[in-house]
Amino acid sequence: MMKTPAKSSEGALVLFSGGQDSTTCLFWAKKHFSSVKALCIEYGQKHSLEVELARKIAEEADVPFQLLDASVIGGLSANSLTDPDIEMDEEKPERSCPNTFVPGRNIFFLTFAAVIARNHGIRNLVTGVSQTDFSGYPDCRDTFIRSLNVSLDLAMEEQFIIYTPLMWLDKKQTWELADRMGVFDLVKEKTLTCYNGIPGQGCMKCPACKLRKEGLDKYLEEKSW
Amino acid sequence: MMKTPAKSSEGALVLFSGGQDSTTCLFWAKKHFSSVKALCIEYGQKHSLEVELARKIAEEADVPFQLLDASVIGGLSANSLTDPDIEMDEEKPERSCPNTFVPGRNIFFLTFAAVIARNHGIRNLVTGVSQTDFSGYPDCRDTFIRSLNVSLDLAMEEQFIIYTPLMWLDKKQTWELADRMGVFDLVKEKTLTCYNGIPGQGCMKCPACKLRKEGLDKYLEEKSW
Repeated sequence: MMKTPAKSSEGALVLFSGGQDSTTCLFWAKKHFSSVKALCIEYGQKHSLEVELARKIAEEADVPFQLLDASVIGGLSANSLTDPDIEMDEEKPERSCPNTFVPGRNIFFLTFAAVIARNHGIRNLVTGVSQTDFSGYPDCRDTFIRSLNVSLDLAMEEQFIIYTPLMWLDKKQTWELADRMGVFDLVKEKTLTCYNGIPGQGCMKCPACKLRKEGLDKYLEEKSW
Repeated sequence: MMKTPAKSSEGALVLFSGGQDSTTCLFWAKKHFSSVKALCIEYGQKHSLEVELARKIAEEADVPFQLLDASVIGGLSANSLTDPDIEMDEEKPERSCPNTFVPGRNIFFLTFAAVIARNHGIRNLVTGVSQTDFSGYPDCRDTFIRSLNVSLDLAMEEQFIIYTPLMWLDKKQTWELADRMGVFDLVKEKTLTCYNGIPGQGCMKCPACKLRKEGLDKYLEEKSW
């Protein structure tokens, strides 16, 4: 996690889905930057409820919310997040990416974020990707993010700074961060992480719910010591 | 220009707009790969004629043609290619990108190409960007392309190879290459490079037409020696 020594006078744009991770990042950004904008990208996920929850959380955080329709991404390739005919992998296959993988997703997301941030004179981008709970998504790794940061800078002749406050945190530590930011209850009750579209504790069966619950249990155990 | 020693048994996907450069690349790819696909990306350009011309050229080249609607890109930021209210810069401004610059365009284009190529089991991507007639577009530079190649590989855990046959050619040499590929007349008569949407020699006024004509005159002069 990159430290910003004091609250920056600059603005930041947060890639925001309304899930546990990006909600924690949204409040992290509010602590570290003088102004924050939330960018929510819709790309044909099955659960449009996700967007409505995200909008409400942004409202509660008093952060301007922009929704971008990028459904072209969802149509590019077969994956279980955007294609209702594909059943979701409950476990990661041993030798390949899980079929929830939307190829290129984080390139698209961060490039959209960079172009829109640039329009607002903002160079700070925040995303909730994490290498720790890697789950088989190659575009969540730190090396990828650093490489794309260079590609974005070269493409637009700008100097973007991609912040990844969760990169080296496991899910337990992400709950801890939410607590430190003062939004433990909000994250626990109002965010949607579940692949099956159920807010809060979710379906308890998909990989995202399992990770979320494991981390929460560990954090609550540690806290109760 | 990267050399491929003999005709590869692999396939290639060409980013294809129907302009001089990408048409030359399409025929270059046909010489170097056993099968070729053309991907045309529409992103809210003013001239949909461009797409129809591209489709006809691909047909003439006997290459499968895929059109991708990525109009989300055109709506991201103000530029004269996609916004009819902005008048096009006829000369490049001294200190900034020309207002025909669509920020992030080549990241989006090459990432779309990579995801679609991956669906077909293709790792070779061909694009007509050139650093020589740089014209102020940072995302046409070789360094950017190499950086993005790494980002794409990391994002999808694949090994893509981006070919840029025109990278170090000036417009005169691009005409020469078209001639060597046996498509000089086709490129001269049927491609559309003009920002104002006029095929062949174009409007003769926009920066693209000026570059095209300068190169053609030089090449014809050299050829007549």
